Amino acid sequence: MAGNTFGKLFCVTSFGESHGEAIGGVIDGMPAGFDVPWDILKRDIQRRKTGQSKWTSQRQEEDEVRFLSGIYEGKTTGTSIGFIIENKDAKPKDYEAIKELFRPGHGAYTYFKKYGIRDHRGGGRASARETLIRVIGGAFAKAFLQQKEIDLYGYVSQIGNLKCDPAHFEQSFIEENALFCPDAHLLSAWENLIQAARKEGESLGARVEVVANHVPAGLGEPVYEGLDARLASAMMSINAAKGVSIGDGFECVTSKGSEFRDEMTKEGFLSNHAGGTLAGISTGQPLRVSVAFKPASSILIPGRTLTHQGEETTVLTKGRHDPCVGIRAVPVVEAMMALVLADAMLLSSH
Amino acid sequence: MAGNTFGKLFCVTSFGESHGEAIGGVIDGMPAGFDVPWDILKRDIQRRKTGQSKWTSQRQEEDEVRFLSGIYEGKTTGTSIGFIIENKDAKPKDYEAIKELFRPGHGAYTYFKKYGIRDHRGGGRASARETLIRVIGGAFAKAFLQQKEIDLYGYVSQIGNLKCDPAHFEQSFIEENALFCPDAHLLSAWENLIQAARKEGESLGARVEVVANHVPAGLGEPVYEGLDARLASAMMSINAAKGVSIGDGFECVTSKGSEFRDEMTKEGFLSNHAGGTLAGISTGQPLRVSVAFKPASSILIPGRTLTHQGEETTVLTKGRHDPCVGIRAVPVVEAMMALVLADAMLLSSH
Amino acid sequence: MAGNTFGKLFCVTSFGESHGEAIGGVIDGMPAGFDVPWDILKRDIQRRKTGQSKWTSQRQEEDEVRFLSGIYEGKTTGTSIGFIIENKDAKPKDYEAIKELFRPGHGAYTYFKKYGIRDHRGGGRASARETLIRVIGGAFAKAFLQQKEIDLYGYVSQIGNLKCDPAHFEQSFIEENALFCPDAHLLSAWENLIQAARKEGESLGARVEVVANHVPAGLGEPVYEGLDARLASAMMSINAAKGVSIGDGFECVTSKGSEFRDEMTKEGFLSNHAGGTLAGISTGQPLRVSVAFKPASSILIPGRTLTHQGEETTVLTKGRHDPCVGIRAVPVVEAMMALVLADAMLLSSH
Amino acid sequence: MAGNTFGKLFCVTSFGESHGEAIGGVIDGMPAGFDVPWDILKRDIQRRKTGQSKWTSQRQEEDEVRFLSGIYEGKTTGTSIGFIIENKDAKPKDYEAIKELFRPGHGAYTYFKKYGIRDHRGGGRASARETLIRVIGGAFAKAFLQQKEIDLYGYVSQIGNLKCDPAHFEQSFIEENALFCPDAHLLSAWENLIQAARKEGESLGARVEVVANHVPAGLGEPVYEGLDARLASAMMSINAAKGVSIGDGFECVTSKGSEFRDEMTKEGFLSNHAGGTLAGISTGQPLRVSVAFKPASSILIPGRTLTHQGEETTVLTKGRHDPCVGIRAVPVVEAMMALVLADAMLLSSH
Repeated sequence: MAGNTFGKLFCVTSFGESHGEAIGGVIDGMPAGFDVPWDILKRDIQRRKTGQSKWTSQRQEEDEVRFLSGIYEGKTTGTSIGFIIENKDAKPKDYEAIKELFRPGHGAYTYFKKYGIRDHRGGGRASARETLIRVIGGAFAKAFLQQKEIDLYGYVSQIGNLKCDPAHFEQSFIEENALFCPDAHLLSAWENLIQAARKEGESLGARVEVVANHVPAGLGEPVYEGLDARLASAMMSINAAKGVSIGDGFECVTSKGSEFRDEMTKEGFLSNHAGGTLAGISTGQPLRVSVAFKPASSILIPGRTLTHQGEETTVLTKGRHDPCVGIRAVPVVEAMMALVLADAMLLSSH
Repeated sequence: MAGNTFGKLFCVTSFGESHGEAIGGVIDGMPAGFDVPWDILKRDIQRRKTGQSKWTSQRQEEDEVRFLSGIYEGKTTGTSIGFIIENKDAKPKDYEAIKELFRPGHGAYTYFKKYGIRDHRGGGRASARETLIRVIGGAFAKAFLQQKEIDLYGYVSQIGNLKCDPAHFEQSFIEENALFCPDAHLLSAWENLIQAARKEGESLGARVEVVANHVPAGLGEPVYEGLDARLASAMMSINAAKGVSIGDGFECVTSKGSEFRDEMTKEGFLSNHAGGTLAGISTGQPLRVSVAFKPASSILIPGRTLTHQGEETTVLTKGRHDPCVGIRAVPVVEAMMALVLADAMLLSSH
Repeated sequence: MAGNTFGKLFCVTSFGESHGEAIGGVIDGMPAGFDVPWDILKRDIQRRKTGQSKWTSQRQEEDEVRFLSGIYEGKTTGTSIGFIIENKDAKPKDYEAIKELFRPGHGAYTYFKKYGIRDHRGGGRASARETLIRVIGGAFAKAFLQQKEIDLYGYVSQIGNLKCDPAHFEQSFIEENALFCPDAHLLSAWENLIQAARKEGESLGARVEVVANHVPAGLGEPVYEGLDARLASAMMSINAAKGVSIGDGFECVTSKGSEFRDEMTKEGFLSNHAGGTLAGISTGQPLRVSVAFKPASSILIPGRTLTHQGEETTVLTKGRHDPCVGIRAVPVVEAMMALVLADAMLLSSH
Repeated sequence: MAGNTFGKLFCVTSFGESHGEAIGGVIDGMPAGFDVPWDILKRDIQRRKTGQSKWTSQRQEEDEVRFLSGIYEGKTTGTSIGFIIENKDAKPKDYEAIKELFRPGHGAYTYFKKYGIRDHRGGGRASARETLIRVIGGAFAKAFLQQKEIDLYGYVSQIGNLKCDPAHFEQSFIEENALFCPDAHLLSAWENLIQAARKEGESLGARVEVVANHVPAGLGEPVYEGLDARLASAMMSINAAKGVSIGDGFECVTSKGSEFRDEMTKEGFLSNHAGGTLAGISTGQPLRVSVAFKPASSILIPGRTLTHQGEETTVLTKGRHDPCVGIRAVPVVEAMMALVLADAMLLSSH
């Protein structure tokens, strides 16, 4: 019945629909005495925001966060931090036409099956708008992790068939372009690909990577609550995610034992195929997670579907949508990793 | 600190080390009035067992389960079901040689970092022996699901570079061979591959699929506790898992929106790229999950590693190990899916 | 670290400080399709409100709830219900004088010890203002329970030494007076007692009872999560509560086995000493819970205390305080019982 | 559905019926590197055991604990500790006569209502035999707390109408008598009272106190998960408990604000009416909890009741029962407090 809370000791509870009055959340478990991480908040809200480039949805939201509690004289007090963001550019009328039908590939159908009722305006509760709450919670988690000298960053490694070349990987380039592309040689090809998709009214899938450095060895619980299990859950809960992997991920299938195991010397591990965890517990190496995002289902190409009454029809989504939702997922993926790590730090720090 | 319990309402708590006295568990939340599912139990314990074919470890365990509570006159009573399995073929002495060193690719290193102490005998707590508890819990979950007419089955779809051909897929063939291979054309190639790996002292990766049929639409919680998120967590918590995906998984990256979204007609969905969930809630289509298993790290090829004291050394694992751990993972993957679905049924059945 | 969420499937997460900008909460798990229970909301908010009679604090708050999500066309959608209440009559300056000292008997001291920082304005997070969130969550729980034909009511049974006489108990009288007194013979004595306490700058303790009717037999989980254990936790978490009992409570100590056990006939139980639970599971009889509330510590009589720096001083609390906090606790106690029962209904309704 | 696990980070999961094969449990979250606390285990199992004096049930159980996991070379490893105790003196045949009827005041009725099936042998799952699991879990918790220099002790303060006189309280006397009586002047009166009750076939209620010393200030979570709320839940979950209070408990009702609040000076608090918590968080003073235990319902005096088929009958419980169950509850109450405190230590120790 519930499901809107993430985390065990560092918790984020989220509410709000895409085109309702406001969205918001509660961060519970943030340790006391931290400055509100305005720098991280502004940067990550900006990075996630729509309407910033021609590569994303044109919805214009100020995304101004109003903190209501848990902060005193600019510092966290250890109590629950409530916050809201008004939905200012909501255009529920855009959705009148689809009030009584299910867009294929959307949560509308399953929410209706589960609850017998749905808020048809935008994605309702299943909208990617909800990810703003994750980014805000993640900003506090990042601030907490920074104090522990853990840092993390995400990027897009593949759009459609076009993969980054590891040889061209440049971390500094990621934030210099609107696509979070780490490979300068690839950027214009991606831009062309997206431009072409948009012209066709199409959408594209993407793969996003996130890496955390300086995670201390020994983090994570055993067996069912390992760091990898928590990360898998966190990432798969993001809208449009269809796959999650740690380290080399699915490539391990074609690998042999002598190649995959990461040998150790006094200088440390000789490789990091495992991606920073063994038996669900961190090794101290960079923690590497990869997430597959499906191409968005809201496109300008008509699709066959059903009405609430079970009649066949076709639908074509106008609205203001992302040609490649994986791009804006980068700060969300970072936020989820930050939340998992902050929770793990609190869980294991006796 | 904890971590040995899986599930929210249908829970399994697990204990035991690979070469300790016994392993065991507690199933809490199994509804009352069910017969002990002896058929499922015997079948799945057998399917998971080592020493059954030349394709798996030669450890010989009877794996006889002794139920201690929660059952009265052959039926579940709704109270917690405690059970133990004695470790009869434990050979802790096999591990004397590695008492003071870390096998590369094993949890030994991370457990030691976390706890400052470790049970070196076999994988200790991180051993695949623990998965027997999952299979036992899963058998009860399967019995509960059967009553709801949900059934599920798993198989191996890839070993090394050799993938099953969907055109040759035959469900009935899966249980006719020791490799859970659904493609009769491929079986001898897999056998040769494993045989070759064993001769080299090598191990192989594998990909395992699991499918649940007749899952009712509307199952799963919203946002952070979606069916996909729970499945991802469940699967990634299995030993040696490095990736989890739903439906087409990572292939969505190279797909377009018009291809990936599953259109609907009165006859139902026209495809199932999503794999049975939208926005974390079941669609009523077959639920498809895929898991990548790494090649086991316990091999006969020496590897560089460290001792507890930080000295460099090499290690070669004799013991009795699986050339391809993914094979025996099939009933484990099924069990985890059964546990997730049984829990979801209890969570949503008001 | 966390602690601001109550419930397992029917959950309320709460935030906000007494004299901060706003307080608010998230109700997660409320089933879909219910009308917003405006009648219950208005009535219970009113019953809990300060400034309504001379018997309570004179703080004047409109307590207007703004629902932000989870409601569509006047009905609950099953998704999380976020809401806020602006603090309009906050007077943080009233508390300047006590910024650097601990009022005896308040959470200020323990919050400071725990977090190393505190919001000194009013009770901060530990203020009884937080109970408004419980009452709002409880209103939804009551609406859900009404549909199941469960109803509940609370009253004050004792203030100071003056106990209600069961022979004079009249349920209909409870809501006819500002003290939730069920004994018309006692009312003026209570009024005089409170009036006298106020003149002395004193405060009084009280005992509050809550009864739920038509709770179906068989509700509650076994062993550690029994209905009685959940109720005990729920009630003891209310500000100023120091004791909780079920049925005859502490009187059981002086009772004998033949008196206390409730015998059964075809017409039902012959008595209800147990108060509606046996072994933590409901019997179908009225569920009776009793809560002891201490006299408030914010009084006009100077008390010895310490400053943040550890210096001795005396403090006298002006502000606007309740001479008997137990009175306004009545709707809060009802709310907590409603939350426990709603959660139990969801937990056991497979 | 579940309910057999206690704790958040320091968890005990319990299974087993009174007259089944064995009972057992899993301790999860016990930190690594501790010696198995054999001294505490033996002492507390002995203190809880039946058949030790004429004041308790005459059932003779060896209560020998067999640890199966989580311990390596005599020390805890941080992994889950599984253990079982065989039921050797079970006499299920004693209960044949009551197979089809409900003893009044027992969980038999509610378990049957909840599950539609019950294990009639003894109290089944609802039997006080389950408390042995708590005592074993509590022994580990006590060992953990000892390292933090927290110690705790329980005693009986009242049986029937006979209360201990605080002026005669002698801590050292508690363990010198079989009734955990701290008042040497009262002991023979209690013995006579119990002797008389036994002759009549009656049972008696009792009040048990538990005190923890050196609990650091600042322990406990805010609002819904305060130390007092956790303790209330823990104590009320014990068989036969009907009331729980902190500090002065229900006496606060007749107290005034100026009396009840605990004033502070440089030398510390001037009193401890609050019992060691303010706003759910520890003050650093002794933590004092009181629990009321009802007189047992299994007595030799016939009582009216119903059969499974709803027919009226009378029942008289022969078996081997306690004339005053509160006595043997002392180590159980201590165990529950130890579990709450150990959990709180892990929860707040970041």
